Amino acid sequence: MLPTLFLLSLFFAAGASKAAALDFCVADLMGPQTPSGYTCKDPAKVTVDDFVYTGLGKAGNTTNILKAAVTPAFDAQFPGLNGLGISMARLDIAPAGVVPMHTHPAGSEVLVVVQGAILAGFVTSSNDVYVKKLEKGDIMVFPQGLLHFQINARGIPSIAFVSFSSPNPGLQILDLALFGSNLSSKLVETTTFLDDAQVKKLKTVLGGTG
Amino acid sequence: MLPTLFLLSLFFAAGASKAAALDFCVADLMGPQTPSGYTCKDPAKVTVDDFVYTGLGKAGNTTNILKAAVTPAFDAQFPGLNGLGISMARLDIAPAGVVPMHTHPAGSEVLVVVQGAILAGFVTSSNDVYVKKLEKGDIMVFPQGLLHFQINARGIPSIAFVSFSSPNPGLQILDLALFGSNLSSKLVETTTFLDDAQVKKLKTVLGGTG
Amino acid sequence: MLPTLFLLSLFFAAGASKAAALDFCVADLMGPQTPSGYTCKDPAKVTVDDFVYTGLGKAGNTTNILKAAVTPAFDAQFPGLNGLGISMARLDIAPAGVVPMHTHPAGSEVLVVVQGAILAGFVTSSNDVYVKKLEKGDIMVFPQGLLHFQINARGIPSIAFVSFSSPNPGLQILDLALFGSNLSSKLVETTTFLDDAQVKKLKTVLGGTG
Amino acid sequence: MLPTLFLLSLFFAAGASKAAALDFCVADLMGPQTPSGYTCKDPAKVTVDDFVYTGLGKAGNTTNILKAAVTPAFDAQFPGLNGLGISMARLDIAPAGVVPMHTHPAGSEVLVVVQGAILAGFVTSSNDVYVKKLEKGDIMVFPQGLLHFQINARGIPSIAFVSFSSPNPGLQILDLALFGSNLSSKLVETTTFLDDAQVKKLKTVLGGTG
Amino acid sequence: MLPTLFLLSLFFAAGASKAAALDFCVADLMGPQTPSGYTCKDPAKVTVDDFVYTGLGKAGNTTNILKAAVTPAFDAQFPGLNGLGISMARLDIAPAGVVPMHTHPAGSEVLVVVQGAILAGFVTSSNDVYVKKLEKGDIMVFPQGLLHFQINARGIPSIAFVSFSSPNPGLQILDLALFGSNLSSKLVETTTFLDDAQVKKLKTVLGGTG
Amino acid sequence: MLPTLFLLSLFFAAGASKAAALDFCVADLMGPQTPSGYTCKDPAKVTVDDFVYTGLGKAGNTTNILKAAVTPAFDAQFPGLNGLGISMARLDIAPAGVVPMHTHPAGSEVLVVVQGAILAGFVTSSNDVYVKKLEKGDIMVFPQGLLHFQINARGIPSIAFVSFSSPNPGLQILDLALFGSNLSSKLVETTTFLDDAQVKKLKTVLGGTG
Repeated sequence: MLPTLFLLSLFFAAGASKAAALDFCVADLMGPQTPSGYTCKDPAKVTVDDFVYTGLGKAGNTTNILKAAVTPAFDAQFPGLNGLGISMARLDIAPAGVVPMHTHPAGSEVLVVVQGAILAGFVTSSNDVYVKKLEKGDIMVFPQGLLHFQINARGIPSIAFVSFSSPNPGLQILDLALFGSNLSSKLVETTTFLDDAQVKKLKTVLGGTG
Repeated sequence: MLPTLFLLSLFFAAGASKAAALDFCVADLMGPQTPSGYTCKDPAKVTVDDFVYTGLGKAGNTTNILKAAVTPAFDAQFPGLNGLGISMARLDIAPAGVVPMHTHPAGSEVLVVVQGAILAGFVTSSNDVYVKKLEKGDIMVFPQGLLHFQINARGIPSIAFVSFSSPNPGLQILDLALFGSNLSSKLVETTTFLDDAQVKKLKTVLGGTG
Repeated sequence: MLPTLFLLSLFFAAGASKAAALDFCVADLMGPQTPSGYTCKDPAKVTVDDFVYTGLGKAGNTTNILKAAVTPAFDAQFPGLNGLGISMARLDIAPAGVVPMHTHPAGSEVLVVVQGAILAGFVTSSNDVYVKKLEKGDIMVFPQGLLHFQINARGIPSIAFVSFSSPNPGLQILDLALFGSNLSSKLVETTTFLDDAQVKKLKTVLGGTG
Repeated sequence: MLPTLFLLSLFFAAGASKAAALDFCVADLMGPQTPSGYTCKDPAKVTVDDFVYTGLGKAGNTTNILKAAVTPAFDAQFPGLNGLGISMARLDIAPAGVVPMHTHPAGSEVLVVVQGAILAGFVTSSNDVYVKKLEKGDIMVFPQGLLHFQINARGIPSIAFVSFSSPNPGLQILDLALFGSNLSSKLVETTTFLDDAQVKKLKTVLGGTG
Repeated sequence: MLPTLFLLSLFFAAGASKAAALDFCVADLMGPQTPSGYTCKDPAKVTVDDFVYTGLGKAGNTTNILKAAVTPAFDAQFPGLNGLGISMARLDIAPAGVVPMHTHPAGSEVLVVVQGAILAGFVTSSNDVYVKKLEKGDIMVFPQGLLHFQINARGIPSIAFVSFSSPNPGLQILDLALFGSNLSSKLVETTTFLDDAQVKKLKTVLGGTG
Repeated sequence: MLPTLFLLSLFFAAGASKAAALDFCVADLMGPQTPSGYTCKDPAKVTVDDFVYTGLGKAGNTTNILKAAVTPAFDAQFPGLNGLGISMARLDIAPAGVVPMHTHPAGSEVLVVVQGAILAGFVTSSNDVYVKKLEKGDIMVFPQGLLHFQINARGIPSIAFVSFSSPNPGLQILDLALFGSNLSSKLVETTTFLDDAQVKKLKTVLGGTG
């Protein structure tokens, strides 16, 4: 037996050590980031738990003004998908809840409804609008970077899983960008044509300064 | 009002017509394919239904020898995700069912369990094995091109949605490639070291010729 | 002479004909589009004018409510850059003019001021704000997909050239997406928390229906 | 002379120092890896030997059960091609030797026969089989991620050089993944439908545990 | 107010901290480089000045033998565009000045004339030549990797801004590569068929050794 | 048997027809090209010969002034590698022969010597020179877009196979670009500083006009 194994080991020649044979690059969250993602964790220390994430298994907390929650499984939460061009998130939308108008700057999205029903839509660069009520099992795709939203369309808690074409797609929520940031009211008004009263009202709710 | 609209229309200058402003490229399934995907359907004919797919809403038929079904929503089934770097599929795995050893030649996969429990695993180029029992809501990532499998891990029908980092990830099922193709028994045996009897037995079951 | 030329012609062997040696892919605007851009114009019909565009040489018309104009040189206007990963546009911003809050779904942007001064800024996924007054010759980069704006910052017509990391970066103007589309007032309000009066006021100005 | 040189040096302006002008990124094999490859060796320490590899110059050792050897020149062996989207390997296949069924998870392959003759083939996702006997000078392409093999097709030692569309294409040998890993016999059997005796026989030969 | 804010903060769930939500990757010029660019500066230390570069605001020094100057704003000079797929440079070409024959090994270029006039051209792999005199406001695209040049075409200082489809496109100036490097005269002559006297004359001017 | 097969066929659900399951995209050389390559040949008409190319099996004709020949196997010659990110070519270099200074605008290159010996080198953007004499079996990498050359380094015919990180890397031969094109002598001289006599001499040899 031993001779056989020994001979076999010669098949794939010297230099092709395990450390080099990377099929994956589990994120070293303590290491530096690069334009292509995090540096890789030492493969010798990788375990199956790096490739499994349990954080989407329970409902997000929807007791907030949106009656909704987004639970991300991006590379920063789920290091195993670093560099693999994909990520996920869970949407919990309570009755009357809404995932408000937002974009993902760096990725397209596919959504699958797994409970309840969701009214979802997006707007294109040509200002065309695509809106559809999605039932359980329906999927919808949202092309990269476009404004889109999801709304509970049934009187029961609705749940969806969404996937992205990037391990770090980003999430820019329109209201937070405008009214929850330190962009001055004057700049918001000048660049959106919203009324001063409207801007200040929402800034108060969403915590914007400036 | 009209003057205002007219003036506004001048803002984004001539040449930037709707036809040109493509944020997406819904597949024209009748047109030629390219290395980057299908050619695009005329944007003027695109409707919201191009971005929605209902085919994953019902269970796949698991009354087969695998007691499992894979229902794809790749670009050929779901034209709206052509060119967007993402796709999905639904796995139905009846009790004792199995999605047998397979690879996706052109994409990484993330799986989320939505019913039951699934034992899933993959093997790397270094012949390391990562296996985990996944409960409802758990997600697991399978790096591109590696052999992997999913098995029902509870006595009830289990369901998962899987997403891929490509609109056309491919699906190569090991047993079908070896025993369901026209690769001759001799070539299968020479390149896998399986016994002749074993090869012929599975060829009979799986319909391979040659 | 002839023998020399003849011999030379043998150096690069048969099959490497001119038609095949594509260094570029000038867009055939009449042909189908693909996820990687337009199909290529017959190289034999390509002239230098395919690689030159004169449309940015004159000022855009700023006599509109924004007192600004964007003149694109994307692939649909400038076929020579099809497939080359880059495009341009010209911004004309009259005194008190503004290029309102917008995104480019598929490209990062670099802006250079060539006349006047411009106050420019963007907001990140983390709701951080980066704003700066740019003088002639200053350049600023706007990462892909993020909300950003440009405002005249001097009492004279200001001009900038902007470049994108894509031949077709898209341009989604927030106000047009929300108030100039056929997204219903109810959906705008639900997904942005703007007041009904505000939404209807801007819809009237910007021509939104629904 | 000196004034001339001095003036010339002003042509390419300040800031464009040598250290920054990277045309390449020789792997620092001691540094961390990233999804795009190894970090770069200090350019000041790069020599021509970083771009040259002599390890493919001698025959691999084919005195093993496969009568074949694969000698890789991937980024881990040949640091100069880090980040350049290409790599090579040498195949030595003794009479009756075989490079058994395998995949490269992250790259397409082109093979050129330089001695002897080789029977090569691959199987697609559609279970189509493409097999051909290749003579000296013939080349064959194996699309990314698909199962393929190479067999000596003449009674003399055969040699091929193979190139990949990635500096780190990976190499997953089917038999080692199934029978040389610690995947349990039960899991192998469940996911491949191979008989228990067959699995255990090959596990004994190939060293699999579990 | 506080309860509202507190509730809102729950919307985007735990783990999605600011540090992880990278929309950009400002270069840490002290850190290692990777094939995808520099490692990222700590986002907490990023300021608006990382996204703004003022180095193109003043004329390059054209008092050299070329009567021209190239001032780059690549990632090494302008860290904010690291990883964003775009960069810029400024060309100053005095009367009778020339940006001599050169290539950018890793990027396509778009040029816009902002003062004077420029005669620009490129040569393809098929040895086709595309040359055009560009006036103020004209733009021209130079496909990746091809030899091209720019010449002052008016008796006044001419200025252009050029953009590239890469944050680090490289710049290989033909004369410096051949006559300003340590490539031996013999190798230059053998590989270019230039005469010995010609080679040595230019080596003297341009400082080549070897 | 039939029931088994029938049931199996249900495993991979409706819509996943063979036509859609593209693992490759053999070039339809009669169809249009796109930025990502040729459109795909109908998969039903693809045969193994699309994936095999025999054109590199015989020596190129070196009876020309360079005493060398380049035989390409790019996508236009070898349709099977369309879209797969790789291609090859064969170099035949007779004694005293030279593959003169050239670039590949769109791909990195790896060269393996299979007969004789070759002196090869490249010059970087920093004007650094890397030159090495390569013996049989040695490999060398030439980073994308940089000037490089190969010279016979032994008194016997030398042969190399080269691979590229693109199916269509291009080939710009410096002398042909300058002296074999219709770039006017004046423009060549202005942009290269070569003497008029030198330029005209080489234009006469290489057939340049203008």
